[in-house]
Amino acid sequence: MAKTMEELVSHLKTSGFVFQGSEIYGGLANSWDYGPLGVEVKNKLKQLWWDTFVKRNPFNIGLDSSIILNSNVWKASGHIDGFNDPLIDCKKCHSRFRADKLILDFDPNKIIGSMSNQDLENYILESGIICPKCEAKDFTNIRQFGLMFKTSQGVIEDENSVVYLRPETAQGIFINFKNAQRTLRKKLPFGIGQIGKSFRNEITPGNFIFRTREFEQMELEFFYDEKEDQNWFEYWVNEVEKFLQKIELAKDSYRLNDIDQEDLAHYSKRTIDIEYNFPFGWGELWGIAHRGTFDLNAHQTLSKQDLTYLDTITNSKILASVIEPSVGVERLMLAIFWQAFCEEDLGDNNSRIVMKLPYNLVPYQVAVMPLQKQQNEQAKQIYLDLLNDFDATFDETGNVGKRYRRQDAIGTPFVVTYDFDSDNDQKVTVRNRDTMQQERVEISILKTYLKSKF
Amino acid sequence: MAKTMEELVSHLKTSGFVFQGSEIYGGLANSWDYGPLGVEVKNKLKQLWWDTFVKRNPFNIGLDSSIILNSNVWKASGHIDGFNDPLIDCKKCHSRFRADKLILDFDPNKIIGSMSNQDLENYILESGIICPKCEAKDFTNIRQFGLMFKTSQGVIEDENSVVYLRPETAQGIFINFKNAQRTLRKKLPFGIGQIGKSFRNEITPGNFIFRTREFEQMELEFFYDEKEDQNWFEYWVNEVEKFLQKIELAKDSYRLNDIDQEDLAHYSKRTIDIEYNFPFGWGELWGIAHRGTFDLNAHQTLSKQDLTYLDTITNSKILASVIEPSVGVERLMLAIFWQAFCEEDLGDNNSRIVMKLPYNLVPYQVAVMPLQKQQNEQAKQIYLDLLNDFDATFDETGNVGKRYRRQDAIGTPFVVTYDFDSDNDQKVTVRNRDTMQQERVEISILKTYLKSKF
Repeated sequence: MAKTMEELVSHLKTSGFVFQGSEIYGGLANSWDYGPLGVEVKNKLKQLWWDTFVKRNPFNIGLDSSIILNSNVWKASGHIDGFNDPLIDCKKCHSRFRADKLILDFDPNKIIGSMSNQDLENYILESGIICPKCEAKDFTNIRQFGLMFKTSQGVIEDENSVVYLRPETAQGIFINFKNAQRTLRKKLPFGIGQIGKSFRNEITPGNFIFRTREFEQMELEFFYDEKEDQNWFEYWVNEVEKFLQKIELAKDSYRLNDIDQEDLAHYSKRTIDIEYNFPFGWGELWGIAHRGTFDLNAHQTLSKQDLTYLDTITNSKILASVIEPSVGVERLMLAIFWQAFCEEDLGDNNSRIVMKLPYNLVPYQVAVMPLQKQQNEQAKQIYLDLLNDFDATFDETGNVGKRYRRQDAIGTPFVVTYDFDSDNDQKVTVRNRDTMQQERVEISILKTYLKSKF
Repeated sequence: MAKTMEELVSHLKTSGFVFQGSEIYGGLANSWDYGPLGVEVKNKLKQLWWDTFVKRNPFNIGLDSSIILNSNVWKASGHIDGFNDPLIDCKKCHSRFRADKLILDFDPNKIIGSMSNQDLENYILESGIICPKCEAKDFTNIRQFGLMFKTSQGVIEDENSVVYLRPETAQGIFINFKNAQRTLRKKLPFGIGQIGKSFRNEITPGNFIFRTREFEQMELEFFYDEKEDQNWFEYWVNEVEKFLQKIELAKDSYRLNDIDQEDLAHYSKRTIDIEYNFPFGWGELWGIAHRGTFDLNAHQTLSKQDLTYLDTITNSKILASVIEPSVGVERLMLAIFWQAFCEEDLGDNNSRIVMKLPYNLVPYQVAVMPLQKQQNEQAKQIYLDLLNDFDATFDETGNVGKRYRRQDAIGTPFVVTYDFDSDNDQKVTVRNRDTMQQERVEISILKTYLKSKF
């Protein structure tokens, strides 16, 4: 059956996954809070990434750098001068747009890459592009709009105290490259991974949690010697795809887009974007960028610190090249939620909503319920016992059918019911989310039974 | 042997736990980045808290709200009007101080609680307090200095777009109370836990990672009906102490400070601060505050939303009371690091640095090393095999004694050495961090052996 983004958003809200940010105050534009169920999915996803790309990878180590850094970091990286979008206003209704997006909405095949602001303005005029809001054809000139959130730190508010919220976690890695490499005595090749919040004052955020001004990134900067034979770029594209298989993302729901040379960011030698087929169209999910020596070189130049690596075999100093697989936590969650969200026809005009989340990302692995109030105590005991080893919840309100549907709707793979016979036969009914099959299982082996399923 | 804060900071830096923030650019005042080892300790500490206070607690659920919230949140909470410090300048050298801290440095027993700015100014004048920097006795009047970081969001910079970085995670919980309660059908009593970054533009940050402007909090807001008999305040003080035992904090290193009525914050009915004996003196580690209905009431009043809870038994609407156990991640880490950091006398003018971290917080559980280069391949195989189940590292440079010391210094509980005999007897040497005892263990049972230790 067809499903829509609106239905997903509504379902995630009413079941406790994602709430509108600051909702009781009428919200805050495009901000979202993760409810009791959403935060568990988010944590599991982040831990799985950390495990895969940092802890269980023999090359890599981790890092947790600050959100607020010395502003020279953003000078070196080019963000202060270059991290801005071309802002254009409709003169009639005063709506504001990104000029490049306006053009791409008009012609999705247009290549914007090397166009100047003048080029963009001319194109908009010549193509007769109209304001999407009021349909007027009268736009202002383009102004560059800085995307970094600016604030000031310290007791004195002057030029020197201006600081920015990081627009990406990557730069925190580059500036700590030498400290991390030296203290851990790492040899090339090795990577540094980081998970954390970033902030971009986007002109047009939107599409639910796909593009928000506050978001979380999982970035790996993999440093290596360009002279090596190994094709590390392919290696990391492959590792990313293996991760997508771990979270069971359907192979036909994403595609690899090898970005054309003319569309590459100035610092990139090659970029593959893994794009996902979101309800609103194909959108970037995970970027794997070959950044060369751009970042280390920029920081070395501005900081005047030696950021080279001493190759002890050839005794020569080299500047490491970088491959960066970078993904936003929330848009990965959106892809996961979208795929999991199903309405299943059960025949007889009956249907159910199921969140078919992969087992490694569910908020609860098991729900325990008494068939009726009389079994409350016994069921509670089983729940408390399971809670030591499983992500478990206790569900006691409403009839059993309703409770099964409720657990389906939040993706709980197994529901354990303590019923009239359980006192006698010391067995419980275990119901499977996907097959809806039920099985009687001895309470004494319940944990072993459940462990075998995960 | 005596140890100092300076020695700890230096050790944490050179071994890869904590680096100066933005170091290559000369740093950023009082900012610190967590290196490859520090981030692992931090993650384990956060996960242990989450496990204890959210996932394995039958009452509680979790949340992940935004750092940037609708500014009305801070109006209701009192932060916009009241979250500021009394700032005073030395007229001679222009150094800036918190007036209350100036007084407490002069007389640690002075009770500041209800003093007005005028009172503070008078006291400073009458006591003849001098500038700690230049020793002058000439201060400006006190001005209130707002502690929230201010920025603006959206494309238009005007009054309406002003937003703040949250100074605490707690308010994100209060504004989501109703959404979380309703969607999860929670009954009182229940708690909502959250871990995340907060920001305070402190006038005088300092003491290494004890007080920084960017920091991370682990907060639980526990909601209950004040009419209940249960003493939930005692319950949570007790749970916090149990947690401190889990991370093996020595009982004589902390104390409970039951705050006097006159020193309580205006919203609090009772507060117990757990204070730790830091190298610079006793400092607040974990606050357990009885906040009554202050927060829910404030948000209900300003938002005009119904934040009451419907008691289905009495069918009456009540405003829940709140107990809040709140702790800063970094200062808890400082306590842990301080306790763990030891220099041990080994006799014969020999000593070693050991980080006696509890096993559940170590960056690496096990290090694998070849005795000499010839055993590299075999040792590497064991390392790669262990890496699937343990937090493992491979250490191949320097002589064995030096490598043992290096692993001691970062707290690795076990070091596995593949030596000359290993090829023949298929055994490795396992060395214990704390006892320095060595044991020959069969490779085939190495995992089982190590598992039994954790």
